[in-house]
Formats: sequence, C-alpha cells, structure tokens
Amino acid sequence: MSLVVQKYGGTSVADSTRIKAVARRVAHTKRAGNDVVVVVSAMGKQTDEMIDLANQVSARPPAREMDMLLTAGERISMALLAMALHDEGIPALSLTGTQAGILTDSSHGEAKITEIRGDRVSQGIAADQVVIVAGFQGVNPDSMDVTTLGRGGSDATAVALAAAHSATVCEIYTDVEGVYTADPRIIPDARKLDEISYDEMLELAAGGAGVLMARSVEVGRKFNIPLHVRSSFMEREGTWVKEEVMEEAIISGIAYDTSEAKVTLRGVPDRPGVAATIFQKLADAKVNVDMIVQNVAEDGCTDISFTVPDSHVDSAQATTTQLESELDATGTSVDTDVGKVSLVGAGMRSTLGVAARVFRALGDAGINIEMISTSSIRISCVVAKGVVEDAVRVLHAEFDPPVIAEDVG
Amino acid sequence: MSLVVQKYGGTSVADSTRIKAVARRVAHTKRAGNDVVVVVSAMGKQTDEMIDLANQVSARPPAREMDMLLTAGERISMALLAMALHDEGIPALSLTGTQAGILTDSSHGEAKITEIRGDRVSQGIAADQVVIVAGFQGVNPDSMDVTTLGRGGSDATAVALAAAHSATVCEIYTDVEGVYTADPRIIPDARKLDEISYDEMLELAAGGAGVLMARSVEVGRKFNIPLHVRSSFMEREGTWVKEEVMEEAIISGIAYDTSEAKVTLRGVPDRPGVAATIFQKLADAKVNVDMIVQNVAEDGCTDISFTVPDSHVDSAQATTTQLESELDATGTSVDTDVGKVSLVGAGMRSTLGVAARVFRALGDAGINIEMISTSSIRISCVVAKGVVEDAVRVLHAEFDPPVIAEDVG
Repeated sequence: MSLVVQKYGGTSVADSTRIKAVARRVAHTKRAGNDVVVVVSAMGKQTDEMIDLANQVSARPPAREMDMLLTAGERISMALLAMALHDEGIPALSLTGTQAGILTDSSHGEAKITEIRGDRVSQGIAADQVVIVAGFQGVNPDSMDVTTLGRGGSDATAVALAAAHSATVCEIYTDVEGVYTADPRIIPDARKLDEISYDEMLELAAGGAGVLMARSVEVGRKFNIPLHVRSSFMEREGTWVKEEVMEEAIISGIAYDTSEAKVTLRGVPDRPGVAATIFQKLADAKVNVDMIVQNVAEDGCTDISFTVPDSHVDSAQATTTQLESELDATGTSVDTDVGKVSLVGAGMRSTLGVAARVFRALGDAGINIEMISTSSIRISCVVAKGVVEDAVRVLHAEFDPPVIAEDVG
Repeated sequence: MSLVVQKYGGTSVADSTRIKAVARRVAHTKRAGNDVVVVVSAMGKQTDEMIDLANQVSARPPAREMDMLLTAGERISMALLAMALHDEGIPALSLTGTQAGILTDSSHGEAKITEIRGDRVSQGIAADQVVIVAGFQGVNPDSMDVTTLGRGGSDATAVALAAAHSATVCEIYTDVEGVYTADPRIIPDARKLDEISYDEMLELAAGGAGVLMARSVEVGRKFNIPLHVRSSFMEREGTWVKEEVMEEAIISGIAYDTSEAKVTLRGVPDRPGVAATIFQKLADAKVNVDMIVQNVAEDGCTDISFTVPDSHVDSAQATTTQLESELDATGTSVDTDVGKVSLVGAGMRSTLGVAARVFRALGDAGINIEMISTSSIRISCVVAKGVVEDAVRVLHAEFDPPVIAEDVG
C-alpha cells in the first residue's frame, strides 16, 4: 500500500468548515486505498493571536515558553481534524511532535529536525488509522523541552515524516495552486508550473519564492520524495517537485526578495586570507551571508560587498566595524534599499547567452545592476528596491517562462 | 525553605491583565522566601470555546481527541504566566502534565491521578525557579496518551503536587473569598468560614458545595496538607481546610444540590440479599448512587429509593427495569424534580437534638421531606426541587451558622 503524506497550512484549517473540508479530502485519499499521514499547522491567525498575548504579558518572552505557548496551536487543529475524520467514518489518531518522535536540536523558535524516532506513527498506520501529526514542533531529547521549527516548519515536518516512512509522495496543500513562473501579484499572467526539479526549486526558494522553504526541498531531494504543491480549495493538480522532470526549461521561474540589505566593507587591503577572515567573523556572529562580490583591487585595496537578511544588518555592521580597525579598512556602508531578482532554469546549463540577455533586458529598461551572482542554473541581480517589480516584469516578458529548451543535453 | 503550592482557576487568568496580576502575587510569595509551585487552569472561557469547536466538527468527538484538544488550554495559560514571571524578574519554568509526571488511569475526560513521578518539578525548585504546572491534565503511562481529570481537575493537580512534594500549604485561588456557611446567592448574609475540617468540607462538597471537590479534599486529608481557599482578587485570608480546627461548630455550613434525581424500585420482595443485588447491578452499570432509603416492609414487599446524578438517570432506569423481572418487583418510578439540602457540622457529634430541630423547622415552613440520610456530622434531606432554596433559607435562619458548640467533646 502506498503512503501519502499530506500537509495542510493554517489557511486550510482556519475554521471548522474548512477543517471538515480537509477531513473529506483526507477521507477520500484514504478510501482510495492509501495509507495517509497528515501534518497540520495551527488554525489561521491563531499563532499571531498567541504572539499578541505573549507580548501583552512580557516585554521579552523567553524562547522556551514561547515554544510552549505556540505549540498549543497545532494541538488544537490536529485534535479537531481527528474528530472530523471520525465523523467521516475514518479512524484517526493525533500525535504531538513529541509523540511522533520528531527530535530536534535545542534552538527554540528555529529548531532543526535531527532525527525521527519512535513507532507511534507506524503503529497507527498499521492499525489502519489516519495519523495526524502536529506540524512545526518537535522535542529536544536532551532536555525533553518542546521546540518549534520556525518558518516553513510544518512543511519540514511533513517532508521529514515522508522521508522517514518512505512515502510515495508528500502533498503540500496551501492557498495557492502551485509554483508559478513568477509572483502572480506582479505578473498576472504568470503560469503555474506542472513540474520542477529539486535543484530549481531550491534556487527559487533561495531567491525568495515563498511557496516552499529550501529546508523542505533539501530533505525531499536527499530522500528522493516527490513533493506535490497544490491548493486545498480545488481538485486539480498543482506543481510536482521531483528529481527527474520531463523537459528542462531554460527559465523555469523568476523569484525576488526585498528583505535583504547590502553591506560594503570599503578599502580592504587586497592580501590573501582577508576574505576568509571577514566571512569567518560574520559566521561566528551568526550572520547569514547570501551574495558576495569583491571588486577589482586598486592601489592594493578593494571593496567587499555582501548581502544579508534585513534582520542581520545590525550584527553584520557590528562585525564589519570591528573588522575595520583589525584589517585597516576605511569604512562600512549599508544599503537597505536594495532587492534581488533571480532567474532559475536547469536548461541554462546547456544554453549559451542567457546572462547576456538578462543584463541587456535590464539595461534597456534603464535598470541599474548593483551586484551579480550566478550558479549553473541561476542568475541573480541586486537592484534598487524601487525597481525590483519592474525588473521581474521586464525579465518575465523577455523570457516568457517556462521556456522549454529545444535541445536538452 | 517552605514550599507553597498555589492554584489559579480560569477566571484568575482570564486575560493578560489578570495573568500579570497573578504573576505579581506569585512573585511576592517567592520573594517572601518560599519555594513556589503554581498550577493553572485554562484562561476564562477558552475551554468552552474549544468544546464549541469540537461540536462544530463532530457529532460525537472521541474522548482521546477531546483531551488532546482541551489540554491546549493550560499550555497557553501556563506559558503566558511563565513569561509574565520572567518580566517580574522571577525565573519560571512551565511544565505540561506529562512533563510534571502526573500519571493517571486511562479514563479520558475523567481520569484519576494514580501517581506523581519524575523529578522535573524538584529540579526546577532546586534551581530556584517557580515551577508552573498545567492543571487538569495528566498522561496515561501505558499508552502515553494525554488525559484530562474532569471537574475540579486543576484543584486535584495542585493538591496532589502539594502532597508529593510535602508542601506547607496548598492555596486554591478562586473567584470567591472562601467557603461560606451557605451559597451567598441564596443567603446574602452568609458568612465566610475562617476554617473548617477536612471531614466537614468533604460532607459539604458531597452535599453540592462547588467551591472544592471532594477528590481534592480527600487527598489533602490523606497527606495532611492544609488547603487555603481564597480570592485571587484580594489580599485577605480565605478559608483554611485542615485537620484540627480551633472550635468545632454544630453547623458549619449548609449545602444544596439540585442535580440529582430520585429513583424508586417498587414492590421489591423483602428477603436477604435483595439490596445487595440491586446496588451491585447499579455499580456494574457505573451508576453513582448517593442516598438510599428502604421503606418498612408490608406484605413481604418494600420500596427501595435512591438518588443518582441526573446524568445517570437513564442507566439507573435501564438497570432497575431489568431488575423488575429478575426480582419480581412491581415497577420503577423516577422523580427528577427533587433537590437535596445538607447541614454539616463536626459539633453535631456532641450535640443532641439537631436532627429533630431540622425536621421541625422544615415542617413549620410547610416543606415536605421525601428522604433523609445522615452521617455523624451531616443531615441531608431530599425535598421538592422548587423548595430547595426555601429550605436553605429556613435552615440558615434556624441555626445562623457557624454555631460554635459550647461544650466540645
């Protein structure tokens, strides 16, 4: 029997009517002859309401207690879904992260799953029950404290369970129809992709596409679990994320991200080991560095620019200010008024001239490129924040993705 | 160092303002040099809201899932209280029933605490933390499923923890000022008792006084933990429930209960073993029998009446109907239109004529007594439901409790 893991996000279980709709959908999958494991998020805005309460009682809520609080959310939605399934005549069993053996590290609020242990999920499946697991939460096995997994945590739970139990597919139900060639709020005629490779999805996620987080795609790729991103409000198929896609597109999609800032350390002596020093210090300060550009040296000095999430700007700046005296650099400048546009396509590998076409299209539209970074299947440009959406429009019009390469190597 | 266990009910933690007030109260107790363990209920009406949601998604929510749902309530209130305490500068640690080692039997929705195990509470105390434990919940150690303790469950958690950790006192904070001589809604000049013995409190609880459930008083008595019932909204002392009271009252208080029904099995052959048969069958059907009265036999037959909670009437009637043919009885009648009034006082033991005075006072007021049951410190009368409040008024006026006996044993 094939095992289907289904994950339903907060909007899919926002109220009792939607929970019953989800129950019918799960029941349908179960009656079709599949074993089913369901992962749920907290209902709608419940997490936000709980965060509000926390801020009302405390100026700085301790992270352990915040996790204790927030994990109440999935407890509510999973128990309600189990009840609704019983009413559909389908035996169901809800399990907390702890009960389902979702072990994590100790980083409250942004824990990583380290292992999936225990056999309650398997026992439930063997007993012909639909097993419902709380998303977004786990337990630190050393302290037995409850943890939460941070952004994209429920997806991570679902994909990890799918991997641990060798599921046929992990279905991610959400409020959009799948993965699009670009954000439909900017490009109204953006097209839904029928399929995309793990590598491309990873690049899109890193480029800012919010539909799936890179952490989930990585686990899917590692254990070769196909992910199916689809809408919980309609029947038709969404986007399959998997290893082998039928046809490689030159450009599968365009992502953008306006939540990063550019930090430049100016007048850095151009000698071996300097870059290593800088980025080791930043790593020590837990600053998440995305793109890095080093200018050509002049007079033995160079400027090094990198982008970081907005939330890391303060610690990045503190680090570079310290480095200024250490390295005899001349100063630090920070620009938060930037954005990144990324084109992703596995077909780029076998197609020449894509980068040149990108730069020309942006230049013709009068958009100045501040930084460039590329991988074999991605081209990213940092531009002024105010023209990010224009850049997406220009590039979507230029390439009209998905563009299927005629000759796939 | 003395250990104080404090329990705060739902109205005491109904919103963020009240949670902060509770935090200040706990902090005050801690700063006074006590170790403190706090037990909290769910916030205000949250449990009712969750039951509503359950009824929206399911006609008959499974008990296991109902417990999974409802236990989210204390998780929220205890995490918020822990945060508020941190803001008061008091390190605090919230623990679920499972984490605090509250082991129960498997009766979802009305589980009994079987044991308190584990050392996380002690570790927290040793680390100078205020330990906050979720009330009303535990875990069945065989299945590792979460259970709830039913009515009065948070009090039961508090008293059991106080017993397990040899607390100096278990303070029960509630929305009334203590234990009263009668329900102040009926007797506006009812007086708050400064102290009352465990035995009297047990009789009042059994008689319908809602302020404390018998299960908590029993544990307090067994382990000799003084209980202090008091208001969370004011500073002054409430009622101490303990072994030794300074002065024994003839009548400490009057309780009433209108949630019982009277069942009569008529024309039962008056032979040895018949009563045993009847009440064994009722026990097998899990019917909770309170008062029992057997009339004097006439023509070798008798009527046997007993009271049961309203919710047990159906199974009681099913049992007696089955017994009719088995015993050759003539029929069953059920009267749900009854109520019970109970007078409780340890001084009754040493004072003659109290019962006669009760019956005369009721008779003078034209109130007919349908059943009578007594213990050494209690007199209970079943009367028509419509005159229960009148009976309370008549008896409160007659005895004007608390009446201190002049010559105590």
